[in-house]
Amino acid sequence: MSSVDGVGTKLKIATVLARHNTVGIDIVNHCVNDILTCGAEPLFFLDYIAMGKLVPEQVEAVAQGLAQACRQVGCALIGGETAEMPGLYAGEDYDLVGFIIGAVEKEKIIMGKTIVVGDTIIGLPSSGLHTNGYSLVRKIFGETKSALGKYYPELGRTLGDELLEPHRCYYHQLKPLLPLIKGMAHITGGGLIDNVPRVLPQVMAAKFHSHSWAIPPIFQLIQQRGNVARNEMYRVFNMGIGMVVICSSENVDQFTKALPEAKVIGEVVEQAGKARVIIK
Amino acid sequence: MSSVDGVGTKLKIATVLARHNTVGIDIVNHCVNDILTCGAEPLFFLDYIAMGKLVPEQVEAVAQGLAQACRQVGCALIGGETAEMPGLYAGEDYDLVGFIIGAVEKEKIIMGKTIVVGDTIIGLPSSGLHTNGYSLVRKIFGETKSALGKYYPELGRTLGDELLEPHRCYYHQLKPLLPLIKGMAHITGGGLIDNVPRVLPQVMAAKFHSHSWAIPPIFQLIQQRGNVARNEMYRVFNMGIGMVVICSSENVDQFTKALPEAKVIGEVVEQAGKARVIIK
Repeated sequence: MSSVDGVGTKLKIATVLARHNTVGIDIVNHCVNDILTCGAEPLFFLDYIAMGKLVPEQVEAVAQGLAQACRQVGCALIGGETAEMPGLYAGEDYDLVGFIIGAVEKEKIIMGKTIVVGDTIIGLPSSGLHTNGYSLVRKIFGETKSALGKYYPELGRTLGDELLEPHRCYYHQLKPLLPLIKGMAHITGGGLIDNVPRVLPQVMAAKFHSHSWAIPPIFQLIQQRGNVARNEMYRVFNMGIGMVVICSSENVDQFTKALPEAKVIGEVVEQAGKARVIIK
Repeated sequence: MSSVDGVGTKLKIATVLARHNTVGIDIVNHCVNDILTCGAEPLFFLDYIAMGKLVPEQVEAVAQGLAQACRQVGCALIGGETAEMPGLYAGEDYDLVGFIIGAVEKEKIIMGKTIVVGDTIIGLPSSGLHTNGYSLVRKIFGETKSALGKYYPELGRTLGDELLEPHRCYYHQLKPLLPLIKGMAHITGGGLIDNVPRVLPQVMAAKFHSHSWAIPPIFQLIQQRGNVARNEMYRVFNMGIGMVVICSSENVDQFTKALPEAKVIGEVVEQAGKARVIIK
């Protein structure tokens, strides 16, 4: 099992705030979550950092984050490449890419094939935007130091602190529950709308009860300031749900007991018409 | 065995000339050569393409090159990520990263441990710059369409055509000879000077006879136009040698018979002083 991912333009926020360790955590956790959806545990990680001109302290800060996050999931950081590409990256801009290799026994691969109508959709809270939607956020708020340094009472911190909150890793929480999981979706670009149907068998749809979980203040703030349509919000952002798990309704109790933060957020229904996602 | 690599600013040349399939070949071959130095054969490849705004035809052209090069070495192109990052990449700029996983039996890993003083250094010709030195070349010649479109009689083609020549892959040629190889160096950034000593045991140095191979016209052109010091040339460029193989002197005939282009370019000597590379 393997995956390759970038952090997206969250990097731009990190660059403006000159705070680079959290994006290292982001990319590892993003990759770990990605392969976790198949039931895989992380084995090896490699990184690629590219910038116009190498800034050793910046690379070191990123690497610290990478190492910390790898350590937390027992994944070996086996290598990487640091590329200096003048003219491609402006100023202190950089790109950060992660490659992960994991393993899962063949008979334990989670593929969503056993999902049936009536199964329960459980959501695990995200820690914020994770690594998606930053281009839209930057358009709405700008990316100056002063915009990012502004304190918002509803967030209880500055916008920049909120936006750099690391992508949450679900590995340790979900690992013991993998045998009960029929399907899993990591809520990245495309949000619940794009990511959940992918794991469902044909002719099934996901019905979400949007009032079953609290949408974190950051998403409300983005929606208001940007005057973003509701549907767009659910397609660009995770809206507070970082990982979706699908299980039989009889197993729900085991999830909610083991993971007090987990919430039943919907169910698998028969597909009626074209829509594979219904958000009530 | 795994490796992660980028194409460097060769991408800038590809962008100016709007020719994107060759860089796809470059990145695969670069990665294949990298793990070949340990004796590994390629198994899986993943790519990462990032741009400011997705240009589907551009991504498709890159992907064609990737697929072609993977096919040629029997490597599975198992996935990748295409990232849209407005504000990070200007215009049609993009970055391309490759990640490869290969395998080699433990007892067949080539580590250079058995190298002794007196062993022979064999060089395999490069097809051009491969993927290194492009930032310097761009500085010397510029990167306008007209600069790249200029025909040079000594090259027999335009500068752009020469610079986009794909990175050569040594897998098929060297695979049958792996049991005879004691050490191998892929000549990338750092040239012969940095890459060869890395595979030598302590207190040994590499002595090259620079007249034993013909330096291709492109490197002479770069040196003249840029007024680049000889030492700098050997550190930035491969100077016509894309892969270095170290073997016992009694096995040299087998290499030169199997690989008519291969040249004996030097030998392993005792280190005298600090220098680990001598270029005569």
